[in-house]
Amino acid sequence: MEQEQYSERYALYKEIVENTLRSYLTQDTPAMLYEPIRYVMLSGGKRVRPVLTMLCCEAVGGTCNQAQYGAIAVELIHNFTLVHDDIMDAAPMRRNMPTVHTKWNDSAAILAGDCMIALAYSAALLSAPHNAREIIDALSTGIAEVCEGQALDLEFQKKDTVTLDDYLLMIDKKTAKMLELAANVGGYIGNGSAEHIKALRQYANSLGIAFQIQDDLLDASAEQEHFGKTVGGDIIEGKKTYLILRALQKVSTADDITLLGKFVHQQGLPSDEVPLMQELFERNGIFLEAQTDVEHLIGKAHAALDTLPASDARAMLHWFADMLMNRTH
Amino acid sequence: MEQEQYSERYALYKEIVENTLRSYLTQDTPAMLYEPIRYVMLSGGKRVRPVLTMLCCEAVGGTCNQAQYGAIAVELIHNFTLVHDDIMDAAPMRRNMPTVHTKWNDSAAILAGDCMIALAYSAALLSAPHNAREIIDALSTGIAEVCEGQALDLEFQKKDTVTLDDYLLMIDKKTAKMLELAANVGGYIGNGSAEHIKALRQYANSLGIAFQIQDDLLDASAEQEHFGKTVGGDIIEGKKTYLILRALQKVSTADDITLLGKFVHQQGLPSDEVPLMQELFERNGIFLEAQTDVEHLIGKAHAALDTLPASDARAMLHWFADMLMNRTH
Repeated sequence: MEQEQYSERYALYKEIVENTLRSYLTQDTPAMLYEPIRYVMLSGGKRVRPVLTMLCCEAVGGTCNQAQYGAIAVELIHNFTLVHDDIMDAAPMRRNMPTVHTKWNDSAAILAGDCMIALAYSAALLSAPHNAREIIDALSTGIAEVCEGQALDLEFQKKDTVTLDDYLLMIDKKTAKMLELAANVGGYIGNGSAEHIKALRQYANSLGIAFQIQDDLLDASAEQEHFGKTVGGDIIEGKKTYLILRALQKVSTADDITLLGKFVHQQGLPSDEVPLMQELFERNGIFLEAQTDVEHLIGKAHAALDTLPASDARAMLHWFADMLMNRTH
Repeated sequence: MEQEQYSERYALYKEIVENTLRSYLTQDTPAMLYEPIRYVMLSGGKRVRPVLTMLCCEAVGGTCNQAQYGAIAVELIHNFTLVHDDIMDAAPMRRNMPTVHTKWNDSAAILAGDCMIALAYSAALLSAPHNAREIIDALSTGIAEVCEGQALDLEFQKKDTVTLDDYLLMIDKKTAKMLELAANVGGYIGNGSAEHIKALRQYANSLGIAFQIQDDLLDASAEQEHFGKTVGGDIIEGKKTYLILRALQKVSTADDITLLGKFVHQQGLPSDEVPLMQELFERNGIFLEAQTDVEHLIGKAHAALDTLPASDARAMLHWFADMLMNRTH
């Protein structure tokens, strides 16, 4: 298929997700519970994870419609984590809309997230004529891992010393495991072999880690401006990103150590000092190394797909990886 | 069996619950996530719901050990609701210990509750050689109902007019449905017939509603003192209890209407006016009516058990109902 055909097909999958969510989430009382749920779930989004679930189901021989409820189960779980994380981070906005705890209150946001978990399990059962046990287990493991990832993230914000390995463990749990869950559920619903499902999980995991590292990279590099975010936002906020942790491992000159020390000690730098950190990254080859790591992970993701039989869905998973990394259109 | 033997047997079931929880909840990192979970789950309690699960499993022909993981699944879900409700109610203490959000913080309490849901589903699968689908569905419905109950409770706090039916719907979802879940899971694990499981659910539901009404009754009546709570706490806090809502339906004299109007308008009464409300309840036969309703519900609970074959477990369910209502020892 051509690029354009993939985009069209992606739009089709998204449409299935939207329709399934709309038909599944019809309850509206008590309003304090279901209004926030419908607000979060029925206001669009890229639907990356549910589309991945459907593609993975197809890649092992199933159909995308077979996976539609498994797909929204994954989307519900992803969104429950966003609603609860936004309370913890006191985030006022998400996707250009007020967050649930801002538009309603903390109690409504806690309850909505809790109920979304239950709705996810119920949805998953609708897609699971066989393999119900494996799918429920995958959801439970996925939720526990993402809670662990968020807990590690919160712990790191208070800790002075975080290693690169700590960080990789955190993003594995917080970001990659949710993509792995999406792939896993799709593979199970499609009744894939253990070997094929493992390959899909590896694909999703590598892609998730690559995505997170690239996110850190884009935030700190100048080309970020067209994404509508502040360049160097992570540096200003004092976030211990992949770049910072790699730099901490590597720098040796007194000036670099002083700058990083200041960053750690003051928990961030004033915005006019962002260029100093960018130069430090440049000077120490951090950008280049992070870029190489991303390439390596993307290569691993593509290679994992070799285990699967050739199919349109497999081809589209290759495209999907590049699309997610913003490398197409 | 004699009273004493039932108490001993209850202690035995509790011991199974404690041991199962201890062996199931061994993970301790990230500390921010698993310390609160272990703090909440391994610090005792009456274990009413998990014991009910084991008894119901036995009552349909299963064994109590068969139900041990289903039992802790129910206990995990019950406790997740307490952890999250305590954040919403800003409650500093529970069971004479600081609440999770007080001892840690809101983020830790949100995450711990979330993860407890996932741990509950995983535990339930360990008890479900067959019927996994029904049990998972019961857990999901139970969680959604308890979220709805809490949402209704929060909505009622802001509403001027709450009817007795509104209130009964709220306590059905918030209190009775969790006991129903406990009974349901036990019945499924024991592979009970649809008819027997339905009887167990009815037993649990009537018991749950009776328990909640009695709770309102005890709070407002003088004999409450030996429970270590303030007499009339609900009246002081302005809670729209079963007694208040019945009184609102019934009173007709100008004085009574004025007192209830003041209670609603000021959202509670000063503590020295608690006796005035108690006298109003007395004068209008509210205490008596509530007591009659409790008796009726308890009668229904006992009668529901008639459907089940006679057994030690069934006999103990009769004892359990009286024990829960504080009518034994």
